Amino acid sequence: MNQDYIQPHPWSIIEEGFDRERVKSSESLFSIGNGAMGQRANFEESYSGPTFQGSYIGGVYYPDKTRVGWWKNGYPEYFAKVLNAPNWIGIHVEINGTPLDLATCSNIKNFKRELNMKEGWYQRSFVATTPNNIELEVVTTRFLSLSHDEVGAIKFEITPINSDTLIVFKPYIDAGITNEDSNWDDKFWNTTKVTSEKNRAFIESHTMKTNFKVCTFMQAYTVYGDLLKSSPDSENSEELSIGFEFSQKVKKGEKVSLIKYGGYTVDRNHEADKLTEAANIVLDEVSSLGFDGLLEEQKKAWAQIWEMSDIAIEGDIKAQQGIRFNIFQLNQTYTGTDSRLNIGPKGFTGEKYGGSTYWDTEAYCLQFYMATKNQEVARKLLKYRYNHLEKAIENAEKLGFKNGAALYPMVTMNGEECHNEWEITFEEIHRNGAIAYAIYNYTRYTEDYSYVPEMGLEVLIGIARFWQQRVNWSENRKKYVMLGVTGPNEYENNVHNNWYTNYIAKWCLEYALEQLDYVQQNHPADYKRIIEKTKLTNDETGLWKKVAAHMYLPYSEEHGVYLQQDGFLDKDLVRVADLDRKERPINQHWSWDRILRSPYIKQADTLQGFYFFEDHFTVDELEKHFDFYEPFTVHESSLSPCVHSVQAAKLNRMEQAYTFYLRTSRLDLDDYNKEVEEGLHITSMAGTWMSIVEGFGGMRVKDGKLCFAPKIPEQWEKYSFKINFRDRILKVTITQEGANFDIDAGEPLEILVNEKPITLSA
Amino acid sequence: MNQDYIQPHPWSIIEEGFDRERVKSSESLFSIGNGAMGQRANFEESYSGPTFQGSYIGGVYYPDKTRVGWWKNGYPEYFAKVLNAPNWIGIHVEINGTPLDLATCSNIKNFKRELNMKEGWYQRSFVATTPNNIELEVVTTRFLSLSHDEVGAIKFEITPINSDTLIVFKPYIDAGITNEDSNWDDKFWNTTKVTSEKNRAFIESHTMKTNFKVCTFMQAYTVYGDLLKSSPDSENSEELSIGFEFSQKVKKGEKVSLIKYGGYTVDRNHEADKLTEAANIVLDEVSSLGFDGLLEEQKKAWAQIWEMSDIAIEGDIKAQQGIRFNIFQLNQTYTGTDSRLNIGPKGFTGEKYGGSTYWDTEAYCLQFYMATKNQEVARKLLKYRYNHLEKAIENAEKLGFKNGAALYPMVTMNGEECHNEWEITFEEIHRNGAIAYAIYNYTRYTEDYSYVPEMGLEVLIGIARFWQQRVNWSENRKKYVMLGVTGPNEYENNVHNNWYTNYIAKWCLEYALEQLDYVQQNHPADYKRIIEKTKLTNDETGLWKKVAAHMYLPYSEEHGVYLQQDGFLDKDLVRVADLDRKERPINQHWSWDRILRSPYIKQADTLQGFYFFEDHFTVDELEKHFDFYEPFTVHESSLSPCVHSVQAAKLNRMEQAYTFYLRTSRLDLDDYNKEVEEGLHITSMAGTWMSIVEGFGGMRVKDGKLCFAPKIPEQWEKYSFKINFRDRILKVTITQEGANFDIDAGEPLEILVNEKPITLSA
Repeated sequence: MNQDYIQPHPWSIIEEGFDRERVKSSESLFSIGNGAMGQRANFEESYSGPTFQGSYIGGVYYPDKTRVGWWKNGYPEYFAKVLNAPNWIGIHVEINGTPLDLATCSNIKNFKRELNMKEGWYQRSFVATTPNNIELEVVTTRFLSLSHDEVGAIKFEITPINSDTLIVFKPYIDAGITNEDSNWDDKFWNTTKVTSEKNRAFIESHTMKTNFKVCTFMQAYTVYGDLLKSSPDSENSEELSIGFEFSQKVKKGEKVSLIKYGGYTVDRNHEADKLTEAANIVLDEVSSLGFDGLLEEQKKAWAQIWEMSDIAIEGDIKAQQGIRFNIFQLNQTYTGTDSRLNIGPKGFTGEKYGGSTYWDTEAYCLQFYMATKNQEVARKLLKYRYNHLEKAIENAEKLGFKNGAALYPMVTMNGEECHNEWEITFEEIHRNGAIAYAIYNYTRYTEDYSYVPEMGLEVLIGIARFWQQRVNWSENRKKYVMLGVTGPNEYENNVHNNWYTNYIAKWCLEYALEQLDYVQQNHPADYKRIIEKTKLTNDETGLWKKVAAHMYLPYSEEHGVYLQQDGFLDKDLVRVADLDRKERPINQHWSWDRILRSPYIKQADTLQGFYFFEDHFTVDELEKHFDFYEPFTVHESSLSPCVHSVQAAKLNRMEQAYTFYLRTSRLDLDDYNKEVEEGLHITSMAGTWMSIVEGFGGMRVKDGKLCFAPKIPEQWEKYSFKINFRDRILKVTITQEGANFDIDAGEPLEILVNEKPITLSA
Repeated sequence: MNQDYIQPHPWSIIEEGFDRERVKSSESLFSIGNGAMGQRANFEESYSGPTFQGSYIGGVYYPDKTRVGWWKNGYPEYFAKVLNAPNWIGIHVEINGTPLDLATCSNIKNFKRELNMKEGWYQRSFVATTPNNIELEVVTTRFLSLSHDEVGAIKFEITPINSDTLIVFKPYIDAGITNEDSNWDDKFWNTTKVTSEKNRAFIESHTMKTNFKVCTFMQAYTVYGDLLKSSPDSENSEELSIGFEFSQKVKKGEKVSLIKYGGYTVDRNHEADKLTEAANIVLDEVSSLGFDGLLEEQKKAWAQIWEMSDIAIEGDIKAQQGIRFNIFQLNQTYTGTDSRLNIGPKGFTGEKYGGSTYWDTEAYCLQFYMATKNQEVARKLLKYRYNHLEKAIENAEKLGFKNGAALYPMVTMNGEECHNEWEITFEEIHRNGAIAYAIYNYTRYTEDYSYVPEMGLEVLIGIARFWQQRVNWSENRKKYVMLGVTGPNEYENNVHNNWYTNYIAKWCLEYALEQLDYVQQNHPADYKRIIEKTKLTNDETGLWKKVAAHMYLPYSEEHGVYLQQDGFLDKDLVRVADLDRKERPINQHWSWDRILRSPYIKQADTLQGFYFFEDHFTVDELEKHFDFYEPFTVHESSLSPCVHSVQAAKLNRMEQAYTFYLRTSRLDLDDYNKEVEEGLHITSMAGTWMSIVEGFGGMRVKDGKLCFAPKIPEQWEKYSFKINFRDRILKVTITQEGANFDIDAGEPLEILVNEKPITLSA
């Protein structure tokens, strides 16, 4: 954890001073993305120090062959891996014939990085002396355009300070890249064509095996005073790369700039044989706007995003910076325009973890996108899973399930499983529940039921079939039991009757039955089509009813709580507070078996069920369970503090809620886990939003009504946020004195504040 | 399974006919070993078809870097891997200038392999026509000397049949070898010196990292009629290999022979800088004996082994061949002369599985060596674990145990853990129990208690400390429980209160306490030394007593049986007999999670406890447990049928006992698991011996007395075996009519036959 590394600022992430040790961490923190592509904050010019290069294209992946110590039946043979894409940002720079490389410069001053979140750009500036004694000022600014999401723009400005200097810019694109995270050192890209046209260059490549076709392109020109040079002095084309050369004699104290546009056209969006053509079109568009014109569009696009999704906090600048960083990253990762994309755990900031989609999307991210964008965006996230239903059925078949039972993968890119630890891949099956829950959550929030007959019901049937086949009747208990699962608490594996999993399975069965009835009555044509397609029988639904009615739910009479799993009370129930601080985090100090047999909980498990199904339980019950489980919770998952923050707020424990909030909101900025160099924790960022809006703000939907229970940490003067509720925009402002609700034009809306009805008018 | 591949024969393993598809399988089945080194049945001459080369030196291994998909705290960074050693058997042969290679020969006739188990040699013979149309008869005979265990001998005889022929033998040794089973394609051997002296050659190499120094050597000469040529015509020395050339014009119908001695001297047995000198000494010895003299010694040595360890079966040639093959392989693998060696799961027949020593040694093999050799050999097996005690304590420390608690590794070579699956490495901890049990078993059988004060008590203290720290008090049950273990049935992982593990842990604590008392009373000086060394306190032993007295043992009142683990009765209890045959073996058809939540048992688990502690339970209790668990047992471990065979015999279910016996005794000969090409299943071979001697013969020691309960399968006319009981040799002959017991010279011995005392006199 390093709390002084990033300067506090309400709208920007700022690093001051050059520290070689932090280059890789900053490359993560200052990453930029536009939903379609992403770029780590690598230097444009050569850098011979430690760096982790990363350019990513949304939805472009590689099926890496699985590598394990000991093979288990059912592991995926191959799984999708986030792929480093060809480099479009590179600009070699020569200063009087000597390459510019910060690792070889001396006297580095005024080094500063700024990620301007309000306007969506990243700038790096410094003054340094090259090995041949030229002192320079460098300012480089870049952004990935939201309005033209295939393109990024760079302005690289150099001012020699101590003498007239010959400056040569060599902008290039390069497909000769590799992945750090690779099992077999496979070659991932095959390059087929390298071409150029005046100051534009194009590399056509395709990924091996998946055959995603991509054209990486660039255009460059220099500006020196009023001299705009749009034709390179020379060109250097190689097998996997192509570069231009622009030379300029620059007078001491004067500035020369290289402007570079670059990016990718992909066959997901264009005809495969017209990628270079498409690149030319987008370059025509952006070059007619120019760097400044494109940047203006960028500022407008981000202003529009912030207009809706900003959370303003007064009186606590670090909390303010944290929540904005989280909201910014979520918007950089997923914009909601393409139902083939999703929210990867590292977004576009690193390549760790194969695949992109976890249950995080449904359990943590959906609410954010639903409330800060609109229901169409949320619907795209649901549709993503519908599109993967066939693959989920195949996945379940591989594990021995039949008759259309669906098991969604633990991690996926294209619907196929990307994970290979038996205790997770095969056993952390509660993920299926979150996917059904998201359908419920969406319809509850939006009152848009059309997704269910169109797509959702088929998903619910596949999931219900899975649960019915996954349980077995225990003669011993005269109940249906579910053996060998891993709950949300991954610090227990292969447990029996995990309450959360059993509960959500029972709920899924009931919800599927309820939606079947609903569709039968309200959408008879869809019903007929779906029954024919799925061959669902009354015998099956009869069995669903039976399983749901007789599902075993472990409960302790003594403690008055549901038990996390059958064996929980046999554990040595020493509270986290009584553990030696030196032994924490336990995942760095304890062997795996010790963790497994301990009572320590990685993230909300039983309490996750209380979060999803809060209306099923009283506040007293919540309190009892919170007081029983939280003391054993080590919060070693980035997804843990947010759920607990929401519940602590509900229980009026604001100090505790605030502590949890802090822990989640600045996880990456303060590098709590000392791993930010590998990339950011994107999905947990939605949890920070949740902590404020659902936790402090107490926002929820109950019986069709929007409800609030406004609270505020004592550290804050005021905070405000907006939500989109059924296409109405509601602004909520909460101060130490009370809460204020503004609504946009339209009909009056009745909401509940602290359970009292209030009618809002525009 | 291929039941016709190997010819039935009482004393030999015979293959007839050349089948390229079976070369690798035969290389395993016809492997030879002498306890110190081993050799797969690779051809001496070049062979361009599929082959799996394997030469092994006992105790010479390489620490391979662990490779896993997802790292867990506690995994070993490196682990010992069985290492392919330099090739000493190679003899290139040229026939009129054309290399002899069976893959390129035509008209191959009379191809035969014979492994003569009675005399300990392997012979291969064939007639074939080379590509240049020379028809040859080839007979090649080889053995690894028991009397000179650093050396092997080969006689390679060629008779040209259709014309006079120039035959060139090129015997060589070669250190340029690799491992098939390697994680990172490391270079394992470094060669430092290649020398020769007349017809002898030497390569000095050492293993990387472990730095085992080895001299690989050979000596060669040819015999043609009465012409003995002991000086090669030429020599060819390269960086990693060295070879000689012997040319001989051979008349049609006449025979030329190359005799080659080769092998290894190792720095475990010699000074590191005198390995070539030591090789010269052993070559002097064997060349003075000559091939035939050495072979005579070999026959005598094997006769001596068989004299004691043979089991003769009349009326069932396949059963006879099976048991002799098993006994032969056990003696090839471990001769009991070196306490630094042990019994690897594949012996010297393949390189699969890192490490060499499993709990198999204590649970299955000890009895065999103890009864067919002598107590010194058994004591060496115990001493092996004493030598590893420090490492076992370190191993436990890595997993968070303290104060001298010892956890022996799941698999080891040098005392360090060689396994890396959390559910096995960290959780299959019952292995510690078998190591304590072996001490008990040894003293019970031999009445030699000296091992306990000298070494065993320290081992028992380390193990007792482990168990005491590994359990925890359950407030819920008011008992000590043991969470998160894998029992002998590896088809359940991370279970709670595995009865076998809890029971043996309780027993270990009680046995350690009992032996502490015994040593205190009978060996006070040793007691003082051990207490000082281990810093054992009365508080600790008090805790041991408490844990043993209050250990939780899961029991079902309803079924009247101990429960394999807490959750067993929640399973869907469908018997194996009711499973679809097509789904078996389940480990090839079911995903791992499905196996784990099924009731199917891989090998004896609760019944393993009934085997170890048979005197603790009545025959009725055994029957009840056998009838409860065996129907759920799939016997997919090679170690399963033997225990069940012993117990079925005890329950007078001879047909079932015989079926189990067959399943274990010809596992490799009939290649039940279709994997014999990777090597043989050595440790389970001791189980075959157990099935006959302890099962059919009913041999056991109770209250200090040797007992028998002789039975015979109806398929057999007669069987007989010998055992060494406290240095008395007892021969047991059992026919359909009854049993006969002969004893060697000495005092009369009282034994119990079917619980009736009988006094045997010489």
